Amino acid sequence: MVNIGLLGLGTVGSGVFDIVKDRNESLKKSTGKNINISKILVRDASKNRNLDIDNSILTENVDDILNDDSIDIIVEVIGGIDLAYEYIKTALSKGKSVVTANKAVISLHLEELNRLAKENNCGLLYEASVAGGIPIIKGLNEALRINKIDNIEGILNGTTNFILTKMYDDNLSFEEALDLAHEYGYAEADPTDDIEGYDAARKISILASLAFDAKASIDDVECHGISSIKASDIKRFKEIGLAPKLLGCAIKKNNEFSLTVEPILVDDTSLFSAVKDAFNAVNLDCDIVGDLQFYGQGAGKLPTGNAVVSDIIDIINEDYKKFDYCPNPDIVVGENSLFEGLYYFRASLDENDDKKIIKAFEDKSIDIKYEVQDQELVILTEMISSELIANLITEDLKLPAKSYSYLRIESEVLNSLVDISF
Amino acid sequence: MVNIGLLGLGTVGSGVFDIVKDRNESLKKSTGKNINISKILVRDASKNRNLDIDNSILTENVDDILNDDSIDIIVEVIGGIDLAYEYIKTALSKGKSVVTANKAVISLHLEELNRLAKENNCGLLYEASVAGGIPIIKGLNEALRINKIDNIEGILNGTTNFILTKMYDDNLSFEEALDLAHEYGYAEADPTDDIEGYDAARKISILASLAFDAKASIDDVECHGISSIKASDIKRFKEIGLAPKLLGCAIKKNNEFSLTVEPILVDDTSLFSAVKDAFNAVNLDCDIVGDLQFYGQGAGKLPTGNAVVSDIIDIINEDYKKFDYCPNPDIVVGENSLFEGLYYFRASLDENDDKKIIKAFEDKSIDIKYEVQDQELVILTEMISSELIANLITEDLKLPAKSYSYLRIESEVLNSLVDISF
Repeated sequence: MVNIGLLGLGTVGSGVFDIVKDRNESLKKSTGKNINISKILVRDASKNRNLDIDNSILTENVDDILNDDSIDIIVEVIGGIDLAYEYIKTALSKGKSVVTANKAVISLHLEELNRLAKENNCGLLYEASVAGGIPIIKGLNEALRINKIDNIEGILNGTTNFILTKMYDDNLSFEEALDLAHEYGYAEADPTDDIEGYDAARKISILASLAFDAKASIDDVECHGISSIKASDIKRFKEIGLAPKLLGCAIKKNNEFSLTVEPILVDDTSLFSAVKDAFNAVNLDCDIVGDLQFYGQGAGKLPTGNAVVSDIIDIINEDYKKFDYCPNPDIVVGENSLFEGLYYFRASLDENDDKKIIKAFEDKSIDIKYEVQDQELVILTEMISSELIANLITEDLKLPAKSYSYLRIESEVLNSLVDISF
Repeated sequence: MVNIGLLGLGTVGSGVFDIVKDRNESLKKSTGKNINISKILVRDASKNRNLDIDNSILTENVDDILNDDSIDIIVEVIGGIDLAYEYIKTALSKGKSVVTANKAVISLHLEELNRLAKENNCGLLYEASVAGGIPIIKGLNEALRINKIDNIEGILNGTTNFILTKMYDDNLSFEEALDLAHEYGYAEADPTDDIEGYDAARKISILASLAFDAKASIDDVECHGISSIKASDIKRFKEIGLAPKLLGCAIKKNNEFSLTVEPILVDDTSLFSAVKDAFNAVNLDCDIVGDLQFYGQGAGKLPTGNAVVSDIIDIINEDYKKFDYCPNPDIVVGENSLFEGLYYFRASLDENDDKKIIKAFEDKSIDIKYEVQDQELVILTEMISSELIANLITEDLKLPAKSYSYLRIESEVLNSLVDISF
């Protein structure tokens, strides 16, 4: 018998509870043990729940769980940062293995928590922290046994992918698509974390840490969200056979790496383009096996619960010992961004002066094609570094927020400025 | 030190040799052992090879390897059926673990070989037998720890996917695309196995065996290849927003299952449609985590070599013991096919009589829309069983081979006959 202490009984927590109950036989077959959720931390133990649950296992006091010697594994699904971090540290210090879905904590504290787990001879797994139900952490770790991986890209946030899908397929405005995401329960009351890319930034920093043997965190990620993309942009993207996707990107060269989350224009016949609605997908560019791509549900009660339960199995079977994370201090964020590409740029002329903008590009000797359409200046650039265009817009020109958008182009079809007839 | 006996030094064998040599440090980190390819079976030991290899480890006599007590693991990559099957059986009987890329042998003899491995307390792994570099066997086994999977679909043959991509994207005829596949080294001198679907049939039968806990073999697969698809068909598919893909499909309902390999029309914005050239992709429809899709190189020296080396690691770490295959004798091929769909049918009127064909559909009370274009009869049917249309064409009408084509439609957009304006 393995006793689990479950911290949190929200969406993911109740998913874990349901799966452990429903699949007890399979889990026994996979682990040789009976898995028993013996205590659950909740905010209000008297609340009515739609779960077939014995109320006596609920507690409002985390110490009832962390101090319980009969509990072997702690599953942390309360979310947030500070409390979750403290609970995980306490559990590991007591030699209890931890499974968490908490991308914020893992992105900030992976190295410390991983060290603590090793010192206490227990495990720390976090498959559910990246891309929900997709077994990407395991897939990445397995691939790394043989391959070097210097390039990762992924659709890591379901909310923004849903919004971009609705804007592209159904011609909704950003605001209409966001409203729909709220209606479907895909967006938080305050959607900033999703639409500005911070959620995806945490996830790409976790993947990069593992792939590059580095200590990467959200602070290392250049973030640039989707809220300034307009219907007029989408219309133009369609005309040139491209589709916008918010991608988390990690790239490494020698001992330096760069991370971004940004809207990127991909070919409308590409795999990423076919990832619709709230689904996620991650591409690993492996030096031996080539591109490997994993696709699935990026969030939700059962998909994320599945990832947590899969980690529980790996803890019990001691499979966590197969993979280690030992960041190499020589591998660091590059001073200059390693990303470059052709860029699409659009500025509304109600708030901006087209001649001033064109001159700014020309002053930097950036080869461009441009056009004015419906009170908007549209520019396509030659291959330039991501820093050059970001500095031009935000520092040299200091364009008003939301008065412009710009997207890097990653296309097999359009790969030089001369190809683009616009 | 772990000694490997490598049977075969062709494309996959030399890939394995190169990876083991180049990644010795990583492999040591993953297994704690030095991996040493100590003997290699070749047809001609005196042949000049472009490999940095000590000729003294080459042998033309398999007994030098199978009888060598210092060899722990046999890697079988000679291909073919009878000899490979004998070698694998002998190795397992002697308690040597086996890694094989041989889909033909695994598809025919999985149950027996797996039993033999267990009896001799050694492992049998075959990741490379399905979808080359994609870790689909492992992904499937991992998903099955929690999920029931009653539906699998995959692009499992790179040659036919390359041909269909060239026909669709570059408007080549089937013959031109096949010539190109030969030129690029994607097609065998005799391409029958690929284009008639037999290669994919072996692979889907292996996946179905594992997913359904059943004993499925190539004989259980309804096969229907791509050689009768014409440029005129492709032109029509494009007009209605569909793309043809040769899919291996496995479906289970209660205790019965059905398997097919057939060209299927998918939405031109779908994930499968975005799988181009010689790439493979497999979709697992999991009851808890939802759809999981895996994409990567379906063949080639290094991708397939990567899958073999990954299995070697799992053998050394005894990870193979985590998953078991125990077919349930109650789970059997259904007497009637479980597949159904809307169908596209085309017959050349040079060899066929349109009135007779239309009457045959009507006699079976199948609701259809039809048209005659450029000496071709084109029919779209309502939702019918795959057996009904197959019997109609091959038994009732006995149409001459290559004078017609028919494809099942699997579309989220076109899902009833009334949606189709043709």
